Amino acid sequence: MKIIVDAMGGDNAPKAQVLGAIAAAKAFDVEIVLVGQSDRILECLKEEGIDTLPQGVEIAFASQIITMCDNPTAVLRTGKDSSMVVGAQLLADGKGDAFVSAGNTGALLTVATLVAKRIKGIKRAALSPVCPTATGKCVILDAGANNECTPEYLLQFGYMGSFYAEKYLDIKNPRVGLLNNGAEETKGRDLQKEAFALLKKAGDAGDLNFIGNVEARDVPGGACDVVVCDGFTGNILLKSIEGTAIFLGKKIKEMFKSSLRTKIGYLFCKNGVTEFKKLMDSSEVGGAMFLGITRPVIKAHGSSDEKAMMNAVRQAKICVETGVCTAISGSVDRMKAGKEAE
Amino acid sequence: MKIIVDAMGGDNAPKAQVLGAIAAAKAFDVEIVLVGQSDRILECLKEEGIDTLPQGVEIAFASQIITMCDNPTAVLRTGKDSSMVVGAQLLADGKGDAFVSAGNTGALLTVATLVAKRIKGIKRAALSPVCPTATGKCVILDAGANNECTPEYLLQFGYMGSFYAEKYLDIKNPRVGLLNNGAEETKGRDLQKEAFALLKKAGDAGDLNFIGNVEARDVPGGACDVVVCDGFTGNILLKSIEGTAIFLGKKIKEMFKSSLRTKIGYLFCKNGVTEFKKLMDSSEVGGAMFLGITRPVIKAHGSSDEKAMMNAVRQAKICVETGVCTAISGSVDRMKAGKEAE
Repeated sequence: MKIIVDAMGGDNAPKAQVLGAIAAAKAFDVEIVLVGQSDRILECLKEEGIDTLPQGVEIAFASQIITMCDNPTAVLRTGKDSSMVVGAQLLADGKGDAFVSAGNTGALLTVATLVAKRIKGIKRAALSPVCPTATGKCVILDAGANNECTPEYLLQFGYMGSFYAEKYLDIKNPRVGLLNNGAEETKGRDLQKEAFALLKKAGDAGDLNFIGNVEARDVPGGACDVVVCDGFTGNILLKSIEGTAIFLGKKIKEMFKSSLRTKIGYLFCKNGVTEFKKLMDSSEVGGAMFLGITRPVIKAHGSSDEKAMMNAVRQAKICVETGVCTAISGSVDRMKAGKEAE
Repeated sequence: MKIIVDAMGGDNAPKAQVLGAIAAAKAFDVEIVLVGQSDRILECLKEEGIDTLPQGVEIAFASQIITMCDNPTAVLRTGKDSSMVVGAQLLADGKGDAFVSAGNTGALLTVATLVAKRIKGIKRAALSPVCPTATGKCVILDAGANNECTPEYLLQFGYMGSFYAEKYLDIKNPRVGLLNNGAEETKGRDLQKEAFALLKKAGDAGDLNFIGNVEARDVPGGACDVVVCDGFTGNILLKSIEGTAIFLGKKIKEMFKSSLRTKIGYLFCKNGVTEFKKLMDSSEVGGAMFLGITRPVIKAHGSSDEKAMMNAVRQAKICVETGVCTAISGSVDRMKAGKEAE
C-alpha cells in the first residue's frame, strides 16, 4: 500500500510531514510518496542524520506551496504545480492509495473534489473529523466543507458517516444522530425537519441506525457515533468543544500550580493527568477525512507535529484496508432523496 | 424594588423557587411576589418551619402550571391562569419591576413578547445567557429564541448585548464579536456576511465596539464580551460548551478516584478543585435574560435549585437598578438597518 503525503502543507512543514511519514512507513509497513520541493525534503532528512531515502519512501517533485492565505477556489489555476495538487493528481492516477495533507482546508476540499474526484451520485464531500466522547469516539460531518446544505446532503452525510464509523472506528451498527436544538421531531429549522424525515425513512428501511435528534450538550457524553449537520453548524460544534477543552485544560493546570499543596497533589496525580491530557490531544485522534471522494483524502490538523502526521498516515492506511470509499460508492443508490429515489 | 417570581416553573418547583426567592428577599433587600398555587407555596414554607409570609413577600394566586411539555405557542390560549402568564401580566401592569421564571423557555419567550411586550422597534427578543470564559464572562445572544434571523436582528443583538454586558456585567466598552466559521470578513453564510457589514458600520460610527468575527474555539478563551449569532447556532455553541464541561468534569472526577495515589492527590487539591467546579456551575451564573422586552424577564435554568433561584433574583435586581431595558429602548433609533436607517 502506498500513501501520498503532502510534504509542504501545514504549520510545521516540511519537517513534521517528512519525519512523521517516514516514521509511519516503518511503524505501519506502508510505502510513502513525499510530494514537494525535493531539496527541502532531503534537507530535513539530513538534519536527522539520514543521507539516503529510506526504503519504501520516494519523492515526487512539486515546485509550489499552497499557503493558509491562498484562495481555495483559485488553487487549480494558480497552484498547478503545488504539492497539494500534484499529490491529488497522483492519487487520481492510481499512483497511490490515499492522500494526506495538513495544508489549507478549503484548498484541499477543492483539490479533492475536482482532482481526486467526488464519488458519482454523492452531492457534496464532507469534512469528517473524529471527536473523543465519554464512551469512545464520534464522527462529526460535515464539520466545515459546506456552509449551506440541503436535506439530501444531510441524508448522504448520515450514510457516509455510518460507513466511516463502522470501518474506521470499528463500531458495529453505528448510532446516527441529527444535530439539533432539541430532541423532538419538530425541532430545528426547515433543514433539520426535512433531513429528519429522510433519515427516519432510511432508518425505518433498515439502511441506517438513525436514533433521531441529538443536542450539542449530549455529543461529548457519547449520545451517538455519527453526528450529522451542515458544515457551518458542525464547525461551531467542533470548535466549541475544542475551545472548551483548551480553556478547562488551562484552568486545571493553573489549579495544580496554585499552591504548594496542589503542587504536591499533582505529583500524586501525574499519571492520571497525562491520561486526561491525551483525551484532549488532537494529535491522538488523527486527521479529518473528506468523505465522498473516490479515494481516502485525509486532512491532518494544520498544527500537526510528527506524531500527528504519523497517526494521519495510519488512519489513511486503515481507511484503505477497510474500504471506506468503496463501501460508500457501492451504496450511492440507496442514498437518494425525493424524486430521484422513486 | 419588587421582583415577581414564577413559583411553579422548573424541575424543583415550587420548593426551590419559593425558598430561593425568600432567601433573596432577605439577602438583597428586595420585595418578592410569588406567583402560583397559594396552598402549595405556603406548604413549602411550613415544611421549613415558617408559619407566616416573611415581610416583603406576597403571593399572587394562579391556578395553572405550564409544564415543559406544553406547546409554547398555545400557552396564551390554554394557560391564561398559569403562574407564568399571571406573572408576566403583573409585570406588564407595573405591579413589579422584573420577572423570574425557571419554566418552559419557549412558553416564557411567547409570554414575555406578547404579555410583557417587546420594546417598540426591536424586531426580536433574544435569549441571552452568560457564559464563563478564561478572562471573565461573555453574553451569548441569541442562544435559542430565534432559529432564523435576518442581518438586522443580529445588528440589534449586538447593541442589546453590548448594553447588557456594560450594565449587568459591568464591562466598559464591551467587545462585540460575530460568531463565524473563520476570522476573515468573507467567512460564513450570507447572514454572517451581511450582519458583518451592518455591525462594522455601527462600529465605525462609534456606536459599538465591534471587533469582527470570532470563532467558536476562541469564545471560551474570552475573545469577546458579547457573542452575536442566530438562535440555532447560539444553542449549539452554548450546549457544546456545557456538554464538554460536564464531560471533562466527570473525567477529572474519575481521574482523582482512579487509585490510592490520585485519591491522596485529591486531598491536596481539594480547594482548587472546588474553585474549578464553581467555574462550571450554572447556578453561579444566574439565569438568561430575554433582551428586547420592556422590562427584565429572566429565564432561570430549568434545573435551578434554591441557590440558582436566589442568584436569578439578584440578577433581576441588578438589571432593574442599572436600567438595561431603558438603555435599549432609548437607543432603538440607532439600531436600524437598510432603508429604515436612512
